[in-house]
Amino acid sequence: MFDLKKYLDRRSIIVDEVLDKLIPAPDIRPTILHKAMRYSVFSGGKRIRPILCLAAAEVVGSSYRSALIPAASIELLHTYTLVHDDLPCMDNDDFRRGKPTVHKKFGEANAVLTGDALQALAFEVIVRTQTVAASTKAKLVQELACAAGSTGVIGGQVEDLAAISRKQTKGMIDFIHLHKTADLFRASLRMGALSSGASRKEIEALTIYGSNLGLAFQITDDLLDAGQPDSRTHSDKPELTCLSVMTPAKARMKAETLIHDAMTSLQSLKAACQPLISIAQFVITRTY
Amino acid sequence: MFDLKKYLDRRSIIVDEVLDKLIPAPDIRPTILHKAMRYSVFSGGKRIRPILCLAAAEVVGSSYRSALIPAASIELLHTYTLVHDDLPCMDNDDFRRGKPTVHKKFGEANAVLTGDALQALAFEVIVRTQTVAASTKAKLVQELACAAGSTGVIGGQVEDLAAISRKQTKGMIDFIHLHKTADLFRASLRMGALSSGASRKEIEALTIYGSNLGLAFQITDDLLDAGQPDSRTHSDKPELTCLSVMTPAKARMKAETLIHDAMTSLQSLKAACQPLISIAQFVITRTY
Repeated sequence: MFDLKKYLDRRSIIVDEVLDKLIPAPDIRPTILHKAMRYSVFSGGKRIRPILCLAAAEVVGSSYRSALIPAASIELLHTYTLVHDDLPCMDNDDFRRGKPTVHKKFGEANAVLTGDALQALAFEVIVRTQTVAASTKAKLVQELACAAGSTGVIGGQVEDLAAISRKQTKGMIDFIHLHKTADLFRASLRMGALSSGASRKEIEALTIYGSNLGLAFQITDDLLDAGQPDSRTHSDKPELTCLSVMTPAKARMKAETLIHDAMTSLQSLKAACQPLISIAQFVITRTY
Repeated sequence: MFDLKKYLDRRSIIVDEVLDKLIPAPDIRPTILHKAMRYSVFSGGKRIRPILCLAAAEVVGSSYRSALIPAASIELLHTYTLVHDDLPCMDNDDFRRGKPTVHKKFGEANAVLTGDALQALAFEVIVRTQTVAASTKAKLVQELACAAGSTGVIGGQVEDLAAISRKQTKGMIDFIHLHKTADLFRASLRMGALSSGASRKEIEALTIYGSNLGLAFQITDDLLDAGQPDSRTHSDKPELTCLSVMTPAKARMKAETLIHDAMTSLQSLKAACQPLISIAQFVITRTY
């Protein structure tokens, strides 16, 4: 019987070890910046995106080790978006995972710069590694930059902020979920596959899995937020969730369909996909 | 007789044409983001860094065309740092080059996200191009990421902000000028050379030229700021310049030495370096 909790715990330790090696030591100048980068990255995240990246490498027949750097790169990128999302001019969050946000602890200017440096580092680590072919590095950078840019995560965040003051529609929520969340999930799977020389068919299957999983993850996140308004959110920003345009029952049904489609996509792969199946089941049943 | 003004004007038009093609059109969603990206990039910058990149390609025997994408990438990266530098939590500038800053025109959150998207785009354009070998792309990304990151431009900016509240020393100013300004000048030259298959010796010569030019540029910028306090600066932030630790006469002498060293470095190159020589002369004599 596959123990998902044990698997996630073990993999998250491995991801953390790599991140620790990649982020400059806290005594390297500017020390406050490297301390802030480490504070934001080592703040108890679930590491779901990098773990998906490692799992994708295994599904296509490689060791998870071949995807360690892309996995860490994705987590650096994801962390930077959280640091900027929390800023006073954005969500104005004082706490994240029970700890003061970066701007509360290090000041607002340093929080902007911490995010900026994490984004640069996310790209740097991909190309710095000696063991990966240059053509793979270029593909990985393209994948990450595309997911991170103005038609990816940042595009989703801009529409999220703009949507608050407008009439919210289903199309708007779909755009935001797709780009703000699903794009980076998709990139996580694709980067794991690309770093392991996957075939076009394998990449396609993992792309569909990643997009669907990301969309379902955001819906269940919205449902959890709605159920526990005090303990999970500390934001000044009015909540913009899929529940603005559909009932919780409809939202759950949509998440279940997405997870079903994600699982179906895995069937075309001739490989043991147990971690990806269990993660998909976790996303639809999770309580945190 | 080499006409530097005409040369800079012509090259800056070429750089702008490339940038226009690389930034998503203003009608692509999110339209406000792509409008803000274009507003910040097309705001009358001198394009000195990308022009240096193009000139470096020519010095090592290629056409400037081989460095067009790296040149545009550097300008995208540079523009993002300006957008974030101007933010209320940083320099709090209302105007840049006589126009409202991005956060004044598009709001603070959109300004943060515009900078974020420009940084992602700077990396994306390098790897997206079809005509460059993957190994060159990887080198270019590494060069840019290293110059942009926590031990480059962002490191310099963090120390700059921290220095305001501390006793200012020569070592502190040197660190800030080196990383906040010279690192990206150096990368501009190196990326131009790398995109054109330069030899190790050529890259070394251009690296020295770029670093020295960047340091001199920052000193003459400080001298110009001090001479025209009202017309050039609109910032809330107390000015931190090399004039905090040396007299204007000493600063000018230092800039002249740096430019001399930059020019000397060019002598090892067996090529016509007229644009690089003229740009160095411009940096030491400029009045704007």
